[in-house]
Amino acid sequence: MSTAPAAAASGSPAPARRRGPRQDVARNKAALLAATGELLRDDPDSATMPAIAARAGLSVATAYRYYPSLDELHREYLLNVLDQLVHYAATLDLDGADLFEAVLGKWFELVVSHGPAMVLVRSREGFLTRLARGERHARIIDAAWGPAIRELMRIEDADETLYDYALATCNALFNSRELLDLHTVARRAPSHIIRDLTETYRGTLRGIARTTYP
Amino acid sequence: MSTAPAAAASGSPAPARRRGPRQDVARNKAALLAATGELLRDDPDSATMPAIAARAGLSVATAYRYYPSLDELHREYLLNVLDQLVHYAATLDLDGADLFEAVLGKWFELVVSHGPAMVLVRSREGFLTRLARGERHARIIDAAWGPAIRELMRIEDADETLYDYALATCNALFNSRELLDLHTVARRAPSHIIRDLTETYRGTLRGIARTTYP
Repeated sequence: MSTAPAAAASGSPAPARRRGPRQDVARNKAALLAATGELLRDDPDSATMPAIAARAGLSVATAYRYYPSLDELHREYLLNVLDQLVHYAATLDLDGADLFEAVLGKWFELVVSHGPAMVLVRSREGFLTRLARGERHARIIDAAWGPAIRELMRIEDADETLYDYALATCNALFNSRELLDLHTVARRAPSHIIRDLTETYRGTLRGIARTTYP
Repeated sequence: MSTAPAAAASGSPAPARRRGPRQDVARNKAALLAATGELLRDDPDSATMPAIAARAGLSVATAYRYYPSLDELHREYLLNVLDQLVHYAATLDLDGADLFEAVLGKWFELVVSHGPAMVLVRSREGFLTRLARGERHARIIDAAWGPAIRELMRIEDADETLYDYALATCNALFNSRELLDLHTVARRAPSHIIRDLTETYRGTLRGIARTTYP
């Protein structure tokens, strides 16, 4: 099904390849991201660039060509997981607190299934600053949670001018590390945890409704 | 005023010193911590172990003898700042929401005055896990915030069995990075920010009061 042999036979001056360079890039990046997730899940300390490259079947030089640092590779991995949350949230036909619970439930599931792979990326900048300058990670979080948070804000009578603050609070309360922690420490079913976390955040929004940010 | 000359004259086999070794340790550690704070405040990226040792007037080998890694030195710096919060909180003769506002206000002041020096330490473990195993940082946070949080919980009718969860939530909401962020982004006086954050957290506790953790 590949079109590569036809291209090679067409007399192109490039050397014959089984895949086009663009396909190679996509495949190699996917292999690096998969290897990153596997190593981080098994043993975060072992997830060095050479170990990830080896697991992906690539040279270290190739790995660094795609991702100039381990941190960038890791960020890309996290953003890919967040993209899954965005796509899931976009399919939901729910309203009220059910919408928020569904998004939070999916996030909890992603965090638990990816484990420690979710908790190593960190920025020195706070969320509001990153959101204000349109940083990619902050924008994806906004896309994933926005509709659900606005719906809860409507229910809890929080003015929409408070949205950025509400989103930053959601991001702080439901960060991966603390959700994993709760999953470990709380001896209850995920559905109960999700319900309690939603109840907690609704209270937070009722508190936010009384404030005057910004 | 030093007692060292007398000790040296007493025929001790140790070589004469102007200070006892224990005083040297305390003085050198204090110099390293002060240098850490200065460099982190000015330019976090420049705060390497050699740069900190140089600023403290010590050799790199000496610095590493006291703190085996930059991370441990940085942790110690943060714990010293938290100790100030503990001591301040212990002096307060307030109740109700005033107590919480006073502790939060002091924390905000410490975070703003120490700046980026407060936001680089991070653990892979969540707060509840660290609290459960009595980790030093978690214990200090407990000591600093405990009475104020319990007082707010009483007002908001949250059962005291929910205390650990309430403390973890407080820790997530008021982490240094996000407070610095709010300080930068919100264009209001710190006293207004503190009042709004307290209102937000009271809402969170009202939400928590409806949950069943653990």
